[in-house]
Amino acid sequence: MKGFFKVQTPQQLYQKLNRFKPLSTEKVSLEESLHRILAEDIHSPTNLPEFPRSTVDGFALKAKDTYGASEKNPALLQVVGEILMGSMTEVTIKEGEAVKIATGGIVPKGADAVEMVEYTEWLDGKRIHAFKTLSPLENVIQVGEDMKAGETVLKKGRLLRPQELGLLAAIGKTDILVFCKPKVGIISSGDEIIPAEQNPLSGQIRDINRYTIVSMVKEWGGIPTFLGIAKDRLDDLKEKIEQGLTDSDMVVITGGSSVGTLDLVGEVLQSFPSVEILGHGLSIRPGKPTLLAEVQGKPFLGLPGHPVSAMVIFYLFGKPILNLLSGQADEMKLQMKWKARAARNIPSIAGREDYVRVKLEEKDGILWAHPIFGKSGTIFHLVQADGLMKIGIDEEGLEEGEEGEVILI
Amino acid sequence: MKGFFKVQTPQQLYQKLNRFKPLSTEKVSLEESLHRILAEDIHSPTNLPEFPRSTVDGFALKAKDTYGASEKNPALLQVVGEILMGSMTEVTIKEGEAVKIATGGIVPKGADAVEMVEYTEWLDGKRIHAFKTLSPLENVIQVGEDMKAGETVLKKGRLLRPQELGLLAAIGKTDILVFCKPKVGIISSGDEIIPAEQNPLSGQIRDINRYTIVSMVKEWGGIPTFLGIAKDRLDDLKEKIEQGLTDSDMVVITGGSSVGTLDLVGEVLQSFPSVEILGHGLSIRPGKPTLLAEVQGKPFLGLPGHPVSAMVIFYLFGKPILNLLSGQADEMKLQMKWKARAARNIPSIAGREDYVRVKLEEKDGILWAHPIFGKSGTIFHLVQADGLMKIGIDEEGLEEGEEGEVILI
Repeated sequence: MKGFFKVQTPQQLYQKLNRFKPLSTEKVSLEESLHRILAEDIHSPTNLPEFPRSTVDGFALKAKDTYGASEKNPALLQVVGEILMGSMTEVTIKEGEAVKIATGGIVPKGADAVEMVEYTEWLDGKRIHAFKTLSPLENVIQVGEDMKAGETVLKKGRLLRPQELGLLAAIGKTDILVFCKPKVGIISSGDEIIPAEQNPLSGQIRDINRYTIVSMVKEWGGIPTFLGIAKDRLDDLKEKIEQGLTDSDMVVITGGSSVGTLDLVGEVLQSFPSVEILGHGLSIRPGKPTLLAEVQGKPFLGLPGHPVSAMVIFYLFGKPILNLLSGQADEMKLQMKWKARAARNIPSIAGREDYVRVKLEEKDGILWAHPIFGKSGTIFHLVQADGLMKIGIDEEGLEEGEEGEVILI
Repeated sequence: MKGFFKVQTPQQLYQKLNRFKPLSTEKVSLEESLHRILAEDIHSPTNLPEFPRSTVDGFALKAKDTYGASEKNPALLQVVGEILMGSMTEVTIKEGEAVKIATGGIVPKGADAVEMVEYTEWLDGKRIHAFKTLSPLENVIQVGEDMKAGETVLKKGRLLRPQELGLLAAIGKTDILVFCKPKVGIISSGDEIIPAEQNPLSGQIRDINRYTIVSMVKEWGGIPTFLGIAKDRLDDLKEKIEQGLTDSDMVVITGGSSVGTLDLVGEVLQSFPSVEILGHGLSIRPGKPTLLAEVQGKPFLGLPGHPVSAMVIFYLFGKPILNLLSGQADEMKLQMKWKARAARNIPSIAGREDYVRVKLEEKDGILWAHPIFGKSGTIFHLVQADGLMKIGIDEEGLEEGEEGEVILI
């Protein structure tokens, strides 16, 4: 069983993930495209704006008519009309003339600047004083200044947030090519695991991982399917894994609390026609028994049975794999990282990555991470935590006040 | 028109929000409860664990049998059986005895500690050497150590994340009382605004706000309904606002780019039987013309027409209002705040809050915010931004290297 039990660093395993490629694509409406991943480059079909527009409320005029204007020595202008929103004007501004204009209004021919209404005063219904000297193009957004015709405005791999939908609306792009959402088959395992609805007999434990892993897949834009609880038996494991590989783009199994479950899963995997074990055993806590494989071209992730460990490992490895299947480009990854200072000493052992549950607290503008120590079997501690503080593989812990990276959970 | 045009600080307006109260409640299944807000306190029905459990793989025994044990002087123990996962054992451990146990296994009667397998060695199939001295309860999680029967484990107002679902599964709580999702009616307005599918004639602008505001409501757990584009006319505005107030829990309108739209909206509101204008005009940039009212007991938010301003104000005021209607408790708000250093000087004017679009970049562990300057009419700049940097009402800007708060968008 090649690759088994050779403990790797998380970094070594990360380097093997790039074999997983984006799924196929589909067209969706603009409204449905929120949080999807763009599968095409988007070019602006026209200049935006298509006409010069005012960025303020005021009066469009020739800048040179305001040269030298000041509070004491205002410029005098004849108001020859008003620009109505949503329609084009035929007016051409001549020397000494101005038209009333609102923010977004089309700056008429002849005008090259807009005096803000705050710097003007009506003399009568027809003439104004302008108190501020303008330079040409001041308060005017020019043709193509926002986007130029043909310009690439969004790139393939982009996560579509509300503002990206706004941009797509602005250029009239209302059917969008996106990557398909990854379907993820999820299996719980362990002889002692029972559905959450049931009352445990002595020794039995309710299935927690089903709900945490399904939820995380939803949060990351995948489509989860729960395939049931497998007993620690080759045949039951094989049947459920086969079903997952048939129906889904990725399969995730959480081991029971028994040590041996993921070894058993490894054995089952060997019985599939095309399988490569990428890792089994990680220098990380929690999460040492993690198993990652490519089975029939699909990612297969075996997570520890303990709910905290399963969440940590799924965050560290499941999320990047889902991102790869989703076609998401790297540029958005910044948003995962937070910095906080250790509120007290957090010990660790060099040679493995530690993820310590922390509660975050802001005090005088500084974010403090209070480690939540507790035996690893506790669920309650998990909901008290805001995040996980990473202690690097070469570090021997963090001292009080030292800054570290926190993953929000 | 009381309350009109008296410019308030954002803080003054915030203080008026607490009049809006949570909506009614409904029962949902555990699986559907992700990202919903808990409407009841949750108590643990039993002790968890219900039996003492091992937190490691190893051998359950009497701690005192290991006293003085070391690498040179191991304790000798008779292995009298194995604890099977998912079942109860009848074994009682006597002096000098041990049973094999896996993580999560029930520690049998008579045993009070578990020696990790790493510190043991088989002598033959029946006896082991244990090399490490244990104290009582070492590597054992006691009855009720995770949660005690009757203990409040989650409080009303809690946002349900994956780990909260895990906890609810652990205690067998599979139907959950949550607050109803707020329904939000959304209106675009402005004579120049046309649907995104249409090709603009000169002077017309495609409706961008529909997509950004609908998307933000979805992200914050509300149910958006788009009610159409209203012309800048009393009758059309009134009809759509009435429809929103009838069908929804909150109404949001974005003004056209014309200055006067939100004034017109203010006039329409006055024609409703029960209305209180809470604010119209804010010392904030962008977003000065913001209008907030309580109409027939429901929040009504008028946003500036400019897409960037609309997003900023909706983030600052729409989100807290939605949180109030959703019943979300304050404790989770931490997660909105990021700190970054200004990558160059960012000027501002004291006396108003500024929200400057920034692109975030991490360099040597420090998060830098690069301000994106540009005329306020540009959409493209919005999608280049990762967030908005807040410059407080008393500040005159940030100097290069100075730290400020960033809202992710």
